[in-house]
Amino acid sequence: MKTVSSPEKMSAVCAGIKSNKQTIGFVPTMGALHAGHLELVRQAKKRCDRVVVSVFVNPTQFGPKEDLKKYPRNIKKDSALLKKEGVDLIFLPSNKSMYPEGYKTFVEVGDLGKTMCGVSRPDHFKGVATIVAKLFNIVKPDIAFFGAKDFQQQAIIRKMVQDLNMDIKIITAPTVREKDGLAMSSRNSYLSDKEIKAASVLYRSLKMAKGLIKKGERDPRTVIARIRAMIMKEKLFKIDYVEVRDPDTLDKIKKIKGRTLIALAAYIGKTRLIDNITA
Amino acid sequence: MKTVSSPEKMSAVCAGIKSNKQTIGFVPTMGALHAGHLELVRQAKKRCDRVVVSVFVNPTQFGPKEDLKKYPRNIKKDSALLKKEGVDLIFLPSNKSMYPEGYKTFVEVGDLGKTMCGVSRPDHFKGVATIVAKLFNIVKPDIAFFGAKDFQQQAIIRKMVQDLNMDIKIITAPTVREKDGLAMSSRNSYLSDKEIKAASVLYRSLKMAKGLIKKGERDPRTVIARIRAMIMKEKLFKIDYVEVRDPDTLDKIKKIKGRTLIALAAYIGKTRLIDNITA
Repeated sequence: MKTVSSPEKMSAVCAGIKSNKQTIGFVPTMGALHAGHLELVRQAKKRCDRVVVSVFVNPTQFGPKEDLKKYPRNIKKDSALLKKEGVDLIFLPSNKSMYPEGYKTFVEVGDLGKTMCGVSRPDHFKGVATIVAKLFNIVKPDIAFFGAKDFQQQAIIRKMVQDLNMDIKIITAPTVREKDGLAMSSRNSYLSDKEIKAASVLYRSLKMAKGLIKKGERDPRTVIARIRAMIMKEKLFKIDYVEVRDPDTLDKIKKIKGRTLIALAAYIGKTRLIDNITA
Repeated sequence: MKTVSSPEKMSAVCAGIKSNKQTIGFVPTMGALHAGHLELVRQAKKRCDRVVVSVFVNPTQFGPKEDLKKYPRNIKKDSALLKKEGVDLIFLPSNKSMYPEGYKTFVEVGDLGKTMCGVSRPDHFKGVATIVAKLFNIVKPDIAFFGAKDFQQQAIIRKMVQDLNMDIKIITAPTVREKDGLAMSSRNSYLSDKEIKAASVLYRSLKMAKGLIKKGERDPRTVIARIRAMIMKEKLFKIDYVEVRDPDTLDKIKKIKGRTLIALAAYIGKTRLIDNITA
């Protein structure tokens, strides 16, 4: 396993792999790796000749009052985990090399980035789309892997890839969860034991909602109200949003039919957690 | 020479060329080709194994009151010219295939697109950056060629390529001019004989300004005033802007030193012409 910091060098190394007609599987991460990331790496290993993982806490996707500074970083541990998984290349760029002085260019995926998580994080998905476009151009993957927990993110990346005619396949892997159902997240490290225990209500509420729909509920308002009621019983939480949406367009739906996304975000203390389920 | 309309097919054909380790030179155009375009094609022929030219009147770079509908189109003549130049592939997509229903993604190069031509054409360079990003992803060129007449455009493309880590070299070829100095432009076809004759004042004013600087003038305000005075004598013109700028950052400059961009835009009737010179 090789670690490369320079974008120019990484670009050249990946061009070399491509010109040897080997396929590249790419897992972009912000580090602080958990079982969810490693599942993405395993899927990449299965499908591609070479696996590249980027570890970069992307500043442009954090709001001014968000947790950029305290976001967990542990590259030693991350490297050890990735080595064990048989990753070929880690891309570990600096902020300065990715956003040098005078940096100006951003990619936006229209209203897809302004809804759901985009309401409380207005520039988040602009930062996400931009860094992923940059990383895609450097790494030149055949397939890139994203986790289903960040559902809106993968929807936006898929749309960007389609709209900008990027020749890249996007695979979304199922959310990996703790035993009690809590979705794995690097931000779970902010939580106290008590908060972690409380946080399992999020997934329980989503499973309950899926059950409601399975039993015939067709009104999104009812589903949303039932989820809200269940989470609000857990006093530690403040709900950001609970939404029932079309999983491809992220459009609101009036009546539930076919595949449906149920997504939520909630604050526990200062920590913002997200989760979702498709029903 | 082969003409391809489908973005998917074009992407596959170009991927095939790349996997044969041949280089691709790319000239994106809006058709209505003139000697300036053909000069770009010749430069591409010289430097690359295969030459791809796109002909697409990109709707997203036209403002609502601009000349999208009447923009000259003559694909038969264009094809004949390109065949004669030994072009390998013409990419001729439809609006619908490039911007299908639900299209959402745009690329913006910050304030570079808001100044100069961006003042009277506020979304123009957003459309330009977006279509060029799309075309680059489809064609996967090693080198792309742009004309110096559209100076701000090539500066924005260069910045986008650098910022988004695109592995593409940008070459800017000198403006090709009529005998009297008028910069070749597809929009010259809108002009009457009288207007064409009058339009030569634009380049004369730029050459005069370059002469001033050569003789030691260091104040941009003086240079701008002299250009304005010269153009205003030609009653048919209404000046949009005359600017003296840094040719890389497009920043305004207070004192002329080193390489300097002098750029202008002016309306003659409803036709907007641009030109520039570096001094």
